[in-house]
Amino acid sequence: MRWSQSLGGMALTLIVLNFKTYREATGDSAVALSKICESIASEYGVDIAVAPQAADIRAVASAVSIPVYAQHVDGVGFGSFTGHITAASVKAAGASGSLINHSERRLRLADIEASLRACRSEGLTSIICTNNVATTRAAAALRPDYVAVEPPELIGSGIPVSKADPEVVRGSVEAVRAIEKDVGVLCGAGITHGDDLRAAIELGAVGVLLASGIVKAKDQRKALEDLVTGV
Amino acid sequence: MRWSQSLGGMALTLIVLNFKTYREATGDSAVALSKICESIASEYGVDIAVAPQAADIRAVASAVSIPVYAQHVDGVGFGSFTGHITAASVKAAGASGSLINHSERRLRLADIEASLRACRSEGLTSIICTNNVATTRAAAALRPDYVAVEPPELIGSGIPVSKADPEVVRGSVEAVRAIEKDVGVLCGAGITHGDDLRAAIELGAVGVLLASGIVKAKDQRKALEDLVTGV
Amino acid sequence: MRWSQSLGGMALTLIVLNFKTYREATGDSAVALSKICESIASEYGVDIAVAPQAADIRAVASAVSIPVYAQHVDGVGFGSFTGHITAASVKAAGASGSLINHSERRLRLADIEASLRACRSEGLTSIICTNNVATTRAAAALRPDYVAVEPPELIGSGIPVSKADPEVVRGSVEAVRAIEKDVGVLCGAGITHGDDLRAAIELGAVGVLLASGIVKAKDQRKALEDLVTGV
Amino acid sequence: MRWSQSLGGMALTLIVLNFKTYREATGDSAVALSKICESIASEYGVDIAVAPQAADIRAVASAVSIPVYAQHVDGVGFGSFTGHITAASVKAAGASGSLINHSERRLRLADIEASLRACRSEGLTSIICTNNVATTRAAAALRPDYVAVEPPELIGSGIPVSKADPEVVRGSVEAVRAIEKDVGVLCGAGITHGDDLRAAIELGAVGVLLASGIVKAKDQRKALEDLVTGV
Repeated sequence: MRWSQSLGGMALTLIVLNFKTYREATGDSAVALSKICESIASEYGVDIAVAPQAADIRAVASAVSIPVYAQHVDGVGFGSFTGHITAASVKAAGASGSLINHSERRLRLADIEASLRACRSEGLTSIICTNNVATTRAAAALRPDYVAVEPPELIGSGIPVSKADPEVVRGSVEAVRAIEKDVGVLCGAGITHGDDLRAAIELGAVGVLLASGIVKAKDQRKALEDLVTGV
Repeated sequence: MRWSQSLGGMALTLIVLNFKTYREATGDSAVALSKICESIASEYGVDIAVAPQAADIRAVASAVSIPVYAQHVDGVGFGSFTGHITAASVKAAGASGSLINHSERRLRLADIEASLRACRSEGLTSIICTNNVATTRAAAALRPDYVAVEPPELIGSGIPVSKADPEVVRGSVEAVRAIEKDVGVLCGAGITHGDDLRAAIELGAVGVLLASGIVKAKDQRKALEDLVTGV
Repeated sequence: MRWSQSLGGMALTLIVLNFKTYREATGDSAVALSKICESIASEYGVDIAVAPQAADIRAVASAVSIPVYAQHVDGVGFGSFTGHITAASVKAAGASGSLINHSERRLRLADIEASLRACRSEGLTSIICTNNVATTRAAAALRPDYVAVEPPELIGSGIPVSKADPEVVRGSVEAVRAIEKDVGVLCGAGITHGDDLRAAIELGAVGVLLASGIVKAKDQRKALEDLVTGV
Repeated sequence: MRWSQSLGGMALTLIVLNFKTYREATGDSAVALSKICESIASEYGVDIAVAPQAADIRAVASAVSIPVYAQHVDGVGFGSFTGHITAASVKAAGASGSLINHSERRLRLADIEASLRACRSEGLTSIICTNNVATTRAAAALRPDYVAVEPPELIGSGIPVSKADPEVVRGSVEAVRAIEKDVGVLCGAGITHGDDLRAAIELGAVGVLLASGIVKAKDQRKALEDLVTGV
């Protein structure tokens, strides 16, 4: 579902929490963190999606009712593709969307497109990650639901892209509007606090993709509460 | 656990069924096929391990008590590794082993070694797949629990390697004995029938790795029954 | 140089001959074939560029005065990048352009963009190869000099894309015009004869990318002559 | 040629200088640096091989008579392999050996083996790079002419592996002797001075692989002279 279609066209801010392979978000901890996200989402009326590892999707999706996204889907379908992660398998496990081409799991252009098609054919929401304005333009041209622009040097830095490099966010928003205005722009890298999120929204983003700032926080609930005050 | 340690040193023939991303072995079908494997394993007293997709491991491991293997584990641990499959996550989901470097998911040498270390540190049985005698030698030098030699041109062919190219099996067995005699040699590619399995054992293999011959059989149970008559 | 700028805006048909790693186009044979191309280009007044292997660029560029393109350039610059092919090195050897992301050397999206930037900063003409209309759109959004659309299943088939799948050419031309009208569309895969080239031009392509039809022809000169009759 | 065969079995210390894609070793600068290496090799009676970028091999090999190595060779032969670097092409350009699997150009295990076979069939000396004792064992099992062990964290650090981590060198030498005693062990990463080289030889290495310490030295000749005093 495209963001612009939610609530009769009123765009809701989307927060996607990437669990990466953090110890604090693997196995039972993935389920526990997802429950915190669900509770905050409900309490504060915000949209939070969680993106656990493939092997954790089923446990998480059974435990919470907020959207669960895969971190990666290969551009292959049913067949002889040992070790690949298919859209069909993550959907069967309960996922309703996926990141594609995250900075830590970059794909070839043809595979991004194939992965996007696989997501579409399974009805999964798609978020293509990009690293600058030019790749954001290219990704938008493929017509995913979202692109998430994350300058790699800021990922995990604690320095929010919305402050350190507002131009990459603004430029991405403009580039996407010029090419495919239905594609929502998320903003990632270094986002932690409500301030960062608010700055991202003011730059034209419809949401944020974040990870370490919440997952590795001493108090995950408190960190999430701080974040959602930015909505 | 090394094969040679099972049953007080008496080697049991190991059958590993790779589910790949076949439709007939995804989601609910993965669970159903695993139950058939469990039933045959118990009825015939043979060792069968199943290797479903990462997102299906939890459902399969909850449903059966035979060993469940991952099809692939990345050589990374906890941390910033979005979209990767970690040993910790598949173990948390119920896996007790993993294929590494399957022909359809080849890894760089340094990553094979890192994946192997990750498996070891989580106590997962490791099977490194190889494509010829030379790479079998190299893989054995890394000291996994098993190597599984599969000439790529025979994978999915229905032509059993044990008949089409017995020398690659014999040569692999000899090469492994010369380098690391505790490493068990599995034989893959084209294995379907009891005859194929028997021929593999006679060539010195301690088991087989197979996929389409069983997964895509009209009657999976019957195909498995045919296979295990070879033990 | 953009195609549209040649001859005061009048677009010349561009023929790019990819030498791949064919024996008939390696080492001395690369030089010999390049001389044939130069002779035909001069005799028939057509634009032919040759794309030999990296190690052959210098010998070819010393021997002919038609444009010499690299087959691939990595998206890295000067530094610690052992085994990579840089824009600076192929330019120093005499190249004036490069293929990027050929079907047999696919790149990650971020690397395509980095390779393109590297080509630009060295003044090399850039041709991004794509596999369908969607990836052509994405590639055009990056603003290379050319995109070359080649359905992988037709590469080396002898079945010209301009006949087998005219829609992919027409769709690519339209998609590019809508996004970046200055980007020229080349059409590849299965092109051999003058007819194929003419059909490509009629579909809106400004040139062709071809390989085996010429390189592996019994009589390379005759094959080229047949081809250029299509201009 | 295996190191142990040089001078009637008397091993000569081999120095391999990796030019990477350094500006100071690209194009004309690659030729100039190679001439310095040749002059030092002749003056001091040491074996120095240079490894320039693929596109520079021909110019370098025409200018000097010391061995010229490629930095990388793909495991493919003649055929449809656009953008790949073949053993045949680097040999035609004048190379007599190649690095394989350098830390900055890691290969899949099956591709290392295929690259090694390609080098052998063209008569090229092969050096497989590895990152620790375990991968050194695996590489040696493939029977290249040399393995070069380089802990990635020390590459370019200026901290010589022979001092920072002598165990990885000693362990590699022992591992190789146990598996394939004809394979020579080179030692890389952080090597700059004559002391570093001497320490490497004392640990059992037959030579060194180095790069930035010489290439990026203010005075390349002086840096090389300092190094060869260690022989």
